[in-house]
Amino acid sequence: MKALFLNCSLKKSEEVSNTQALMDEVAKILQTHHVECESVRIADYHIPYGITDDAGDGDQWPEILTKIRNATIVVIGTPLWIGEKSSIAKNVLERINGSANLTDENGQSIFYNKVGGVVVTGNEDGAKNAAASIVFSLNYMGFTMPPEPVAYWLGEAGPGPSFIEAEGIKSEFTAGQVKTMAANLLHVATIFSTNPIPPEEN
Amino acid sequence: MKALFLNCSLKKSEEVSNTQALMDEVAKILQTHHVECESVRIADYHIPYGITDDAGDGDQWPEILTKIRNATIVVIGTPLWIGEKSSIAKNVLERINGSANLTDENGQSIFYNKVGGVVVTGNEDGAKNAAASIVFSLNYMGFTMPPEPVAYWLGEAGPGPSFIEAEGIKSEFTAGQVKTMAANLLHVATIFSTNPIPPEEN
Amino acid sequence: MKALFLNCSLKKSEEVSNTQALMDEVAKILQTHHVECESVRIADYHIPYGITDDAGDGDQWPEILTKIRNATIVVIGTPLWIGEKSSIAKNVLERINGSANLTDENGQSIFYNKVGGVVVTGNEDGAKNAAASIVFSLNYMGFTMPPEPVAYWLGEAGPGPSFIEAEGIKSEFTAGQVKTMAANLLHVATIFSTNPIPPEEN
Amino acid sequence: MKALFLNCSLKKSEEVSNTQALMDEVAKILQTHHVECESVRIADYHIPYGITDDAGDGDQWPEILTKIRNATIVVIGTPLWIGEKSSIAKNVLERINGSANLTDENGQSIFYNKVGGVVVTGNEDGAKNAAASIVFSLNYMGFTMPPEPVAYWLGEAGPGPSFIEAEGIKSEFTAGQVKTMAANLLHVATIFSTNPIPPEEN
Repeated sequence: MKALFLNCSLKKSEEVSNTQALMDEVAKILQTHHVECESVRIADYHIPYGITDDAGDGDQWPEILTKIRNATIVVIGTPLWIGEKSSIAKNVLERINGSANLTDENGQSIFYNKVGGVVVTGNEDGAKNAAASIVFSLNYMGFTMPPEPVAYWLGEAGPGPSFIEAEGIKSEFTAGQVKTMAANLLHVATIFSTNPIPPEEN
Repeated sequence: MKALFLNCSLKKSEEVSNTQALMDEVAKILQTHHVECESVRIADYHIPYGITDDAGDGDQWPEILTKIRNATIVVIGTPLWIGEKSSIAKNVLERINGSANLTDENGQSIFYNKVGGVVVTGNEDGAKNAAASIVFSLNYMGFTMPPEPVAYWLGEAGPGPSFIEAEGIKSEFTAGQVKTMAANLLHVATIFSTNPIPPEEN
Repeated sequence: MKALFLNCSLKKSEEVSNTQALMDEVAKILQTHHVECESVRIADYHIPYGITDDAGDGDQWPEILTKIRNATIVVIGTPLWIGEKSSIAKNVLERINGSANLTDENGQSIFYNKVGGVVVTGNEDGAKNAAASIVFSLNYMGFTMPPEPVAYWLGEAGPGPSFIEAEGIKSEFTAGQVKTMAANLLHVATIFSTNPIPPEEN
Repeated sequence: MKALFLNCSLKKSEEVSNTQALMDEVAKILQTHHVECESVRIADYHIPYGITDDAGDGDQWPEILTKIRNATIVVIGTPLWIGEKSSIAKNVLERINGSANLTDENGQSIFYNKVGGVVVTGNEDGAKNAAASIVFSLNYMGFTMPPEPVAYWLGEAGPGPSFIEAEGIKSEFTAGQVKTMAANLLHVATIFSTNPIPPEEN
C-alpha cells in the first residue's frame, strides 16, 4: 500500500517546512505497517492555476496526479495564513476538482476507494478551519474520510515559534492525533482494498 | 440497519420543512434497501446549550443521543441563514462534541463505526459552507464520511422560492447527489458492520 | 455614546466567562473616553430560534434589540467550540438578520451608522474563523467595520487553561489588539456621528 | 479619488471573465461620481507565493502594491471553486498580509484609511463564504469595511450558465447590491479623506 503526502507549504524544499515535520510523524507510523510513503513539496513543481487535469505547456500536475492515482492514502499538509489553508493548498484542491471527472476502467471516479487525511501547522490559529475546508473538498471529490483524519499543532495567540522550534511533537495532544490518524487511515484503506465501493450509483 | 435524520430547521414540526423534504428523498432510497429510517425535528425538543451529554433538568438530548447510538447512519439536515448552517445545527454539533468522550463496552468512542451525511436546502447560497462545517465536525468526532455524503438544493442569488415550491427535486444535479449519497452511506455502513475499526489507537 | 457587548458564552451569568473578561478590557478603554458600556449575557435571556425581530410569547430579543438600537458600538463576544463561534452567537446573528429590515424614521436600516467589533476566547483554535463569520454577518447586515475590530486569545493546541486562568491579558499580542480595536471603534463611531451614511441607495 | 479592482479569476485576460463583468457594474456607478477606476487581472501578472511585499526575481506584486497604495477604494473579485474563493484570491490576500507591516510617513499601516469591497460570481454556491473570507482578511489587515460592501451573482444548484450568459445583471437582487455597495464605498471613502483614522494606537 502507498501513502502520498502533498505538502502545500509556500516554501520550496530548500527551506525547512514545519508542516513536513508533522507529516513525517504520520508517515513514520504508516511505515512500521509497511506502507510505502512519499512526500511531495508542491512549491517545487510548476502547477498552473485552473480547473483542468492537464493545462499543457509544462504543467506538472499530471505527475502529481499519477502519484495520487497510485496511492491509497493521500494526506494534504498546509501551513496557516490569516487563519486559513495556503493558496497552494487551494490550488491543489482546484486541480483535484479539475481531475475528478477522470474515471478508471470501471467508469468510477479515480478518487474513489482512496482515504484522505490532513496535517496542519501554524503559529497560532486556524487549524480546524483549514482542516474543514480540506476534509470537505477531498470528501466531496470522492475520497473517504476515516474518523479523526487530522493532526495539527499551534502555539498560543500571536507571533511565536513554529512546530519544530517549539518542539510541538512533545504536545501530548498532537502526538495523540498523529497516532489515531495513522491507525484510522490504515484501517479504512485496508478494508476498502477487499471491499471497494462498487462503481454503480456514483 | 438504522438511519437517523436530524433535521435542524429553525421551525417546529407544525410547519413544513424544505430540508425534511430533501432528507426524505435520501430516506426513500435507503428504505428500499431495508434500512429503518427515523427523522427527528430538533426544534420540537428541549435541547439546552452546553458541551455536555446531559444537562439535566428536562434536557432531551439524552433521548436524541440514544437514537444516535442505535443508528449506523446519521444524517444532519440544515437550512441556510447568512450562508451558514442554522444555530440549531450548531447546538446539535456542540452536544455531539459534549458526548464524544462516551465510550462503548470496548472503550471506543460511541461515534466510531457510524457513517455521517449532510442535507442542505436554502434559497440561494451557502450549501457547501454549511456542509463543510458539518462534515468536518462529524468526522472529527469519530464518524466516517463516505465519498460525496452531501445533497443540497439552492435557487438563484437573492430571495426566491424554497425547495418544495421550486420543485427542487426535479434538479438533475440534486437528484444525482441524493442517489450517490444514499448508495455510499449504505455501502460504507455495511462494510463497517463486518470490518469495524478496532478500538485500539483511537 | 453607548457601547453594547453581547456575550454569547454558552454559560449563564452564574458562571464566570472568559469571553467577558476579555470584553471587559475593551470596555475599560472605551470608558476612559466616556463611552457608556453595557454587557449582556445572552444565555440569561429567552431568545427563541427564528428569523424574526419578535417571536412573541415571552421572546426577549426585543429587549436586546432596543439596546442595540441605542448603542453606536456593538461588540459580539464568543467562545469557540469545534473551532467555530458558539450556537448562541449564531442565534444572535440570525435574530439580527431577522431585524435587518426594520428602518428608522429616514427609512434606513437600523444597523446603519453603527460600528461592530468581535471578541473571541478559546482554549486553542478557531478565533479568526469565528471572527470572520461575525465580522461578515454584522457588515452584511449594515454595520460598518473599522480596521482591525477584533481581539482574541487562544492557548496552544489541545486542552489547556482558558483566558482568565492562563492570564491571557498578559499576552502582548492580545493586549495590543484590545487597544487598536477600542481606538478604531471609537474613531469611526465618532466620525459617523457627524457624517452619517445618507439613507439613499441603501 | 481612485478605485482599484483586483480580479482574481483563474483565467488570463485573453478569456472573458464573469467576475470582471460584475465588477464593471460597480465601477460604472463609481465613475459617474468621478472616481477613477482601474481593473487588474491578477492572472496576467507573475505573483509568486509567499508572505512578503517583494519576493524579488521578477515578482510583480510591487506593481500591484503601488496601485493599492494609490487607491482609496479596493475591490477584490473572485470566482468560486468548491464553494470558496479562488487560489489566486488567497495568493493576493497572502501578499497583502506580507505587506501589512509597511507604513506611511506617519508610521501608520498603508492599508488604513482605505475602504474594501468584494465581488463574487459563480455558477451556484459559495458567495457569502468567499465574501466572508475576503471581508475579514481585508478588515484584519487595516481596511475599513463600509456597510454591505458585497455584490454577487449565483445560479441554481449544479452546473449552469455563468453571470454573463445568464444575464445575471438583470437580477434585481444583484443589481441592488451593486448600487448599495458603490454608494457605501464612496461615502465612507469620502468621509475618511477629511476624517482619517489617526496613526496613534494602531
